[in-house]
Amino acid sequence: MSPASPTSPESIERGIRLLEGQGYRVSLAENVFAKDGYLAGTDAQRSSDLQRAFEDDEIAGVVCSRGGYGCARLLPYLDMDQMAASGKPFIGFSDVTTLHLALNRRGLATFHAPMLLTFSVDREPWVIDSFLALLSGQDSLKVDSPAGVTLRGGVAEGVLTGGCLCLLTDSLATPDTLECAGRIVMIEDVDENPHRVDALLTHLLRSGALESAAGIVVGEMTGTDERCDPKIGAWPWRRIVEDRLGNLNVPTIVNYPIGHMKNMLSIPLGVRARLDADAGRLTLLESPCA
Amino acid sequence: MSPASPTSPESIERGIRLLEGQGYRVSLAENVFAKDGYLAGTDAQRSSDLQRAFEDDEIAGVVCSRGGYGCARLLPYLDMDQMAASGKPFIGFSDVTTLHLALNRRGLATFHAPMLLTFSVDREPWVIDSFLALLSGQDSLKVDSPAGVTLRGGVAEGVLTGGCLCLLTDSLATPDTLECAGRIVMIEDVDENPHRVDALLTHLLRSGALESAAGIVVGEMTGTDERCDPKIGAWPWRRIVEDRLGNLNVPTIVNYPIGHMKNMLSIPLGVRARLDADAGRLTLLESPCA
Repeated sequence: MSPASPTSPESIERGIRLLEGQGYRVSLAENVFAKDGYLAGTDAQRSSDLQRAFEDDEIAGVVCSRGGYGCARLLPYLDMDQMAASGKPFIGFSDVTTLHLALNRRGLATFHAPMLLTFSVDREPWVIDSFLALLSGQDSLKVDSPAGVTLRGGVAEGVLTGGCLCLLTDSLATPDTLECAGRIVMIEDVDENPHRVDALLTHLLRSGALESAAGIVVGEMTGTDERCDPKIGAWPWRRIVEDRLGNLNVPTIVNYPIGHMKNMLSIPLGVRARLDADAGRLTLLESPCA
Repeated sequence: MSPASPTSPESIERGIRLLEGQGYRVSLAENVFAKDGYLAGTDAQRSSDLQRAFEDDEIAGVVCSRGGYGCARLLPYLDMDQMAASGKPFIGFSDVTTLHLALNRRGLATFHAPMLLTFSVDREPWVIDSFLALLSGQDSLKVDSPAGVTLRGGVAEGVLTGGCLCLLTDSLATPDTLECAGRIVMIEDVDENPHRVDALLTHLLRSGALESAAGIVVGEMTGTDERCDPKIGAWPWRRIVEDRLGNLNVPTIVNYPIGHMKNMLSIPLGVRARLDADAGRLTLLESPCA
């Protein structure tokens, strides 16, 4: 189903084939290809597709076609408690971060993982391995993926949360706000201007949210270094992350493969994990299907 | 002084000449032309320039050179109570919205008005008239400016607040958050993608901030209609504003000349005003220098 921006049959064809090749049956939501500007149909269409997928006993799990924008508009229309109680796997990232936060808060572990559109581009074999492992209830981090880079060493344990940075800040001061206390917080984004990456991280800092985090896992700010606005000027995104997050006294890594990076792990949110910031690795301490 | 992004002597030359032509003496802050990527010097340089301008008895008012980004980074370094107690006129918009919110909260009326860079481009005579009126303690809205367009009619009275949309949302959940209760809230922005305008307005709605506003004055989303991301899709910005704000049951106008529009009024924040949404006009009920 498409909770956010529009997609096309061609865009998700390879993703569907990947799932069907593993023996999954794929059922397309009624409005999966609907389009109204930047939205995949009206809020009523998208929310009804999502709610029905969680309610329908024939549906074992819900995979988003893509992100873009639109999930935040759905919240007034959804029965999130009912959705969370279903216990179904829910899969996506980027704009879908908003739904992860709302479902995790209600006790459902969800999957920060590739969407159907993600597979329209070639990915490393470990990306597929991690994705299929998570879908089948295995440990999705036991694959041959690159490690992150240490920004501040140490080991932390906590429940995983986070996702796409601008959606994390979009949640602040709302009923489904990002909660960082004692948690390992994942942060990544795409196509943000350098000064906006600074503004978004500064917003997280000013809100006090990050002060109580157990650890921080940054992916990358994909495309940011190519988006210098000559009227404003730029820093490389790594400098911005180090400047803003380097003084938090918690284990922190960057360039960990998540989200909008060229290759990405599939990671359960709402489950306990261990961050070894010296090794640049996350390890799951719980099964996402517990 | 430059609280945010870098500027150059050439960019602010016309603005300085305008002030000097009116008999004002212009004193440039020590680091006004400093540059470090998107910042006009380090946080220490910018905050020290700002604090000193408020402390120095020789300085009657503080005019920002330009916005861009950087004001939010200054807050930990500033004695905002001391600045607010000075009673000095403080002039800017765009990124400076962050400082307006912090100063208004502490009882200082501030000026949402052109900066030195603004005058590097030709503006209508009423833009100059409004700016000079505000500087000299006159009513800056009694000029021959265009009216706004009625989105929801009616009349509202309340203290003026608001500014650049992405800075308003950047304030949510921070100690200097936007407060809308009983107030007339001004909203405008520049160079935002259409779906981000929706996301930012949806963030304000989800936070509950707008529910208690007395009235809403939207400028425009300058440049948004030229920024359709073909990967996501677009709505015209006026449709987004009408969709998101049209159902709030308060007097609301759009296209009111403020902020990043081609021509803009100079408006005091933190003072009481009347919004006549049928006529598309604001009227000041208090002097900004009271």
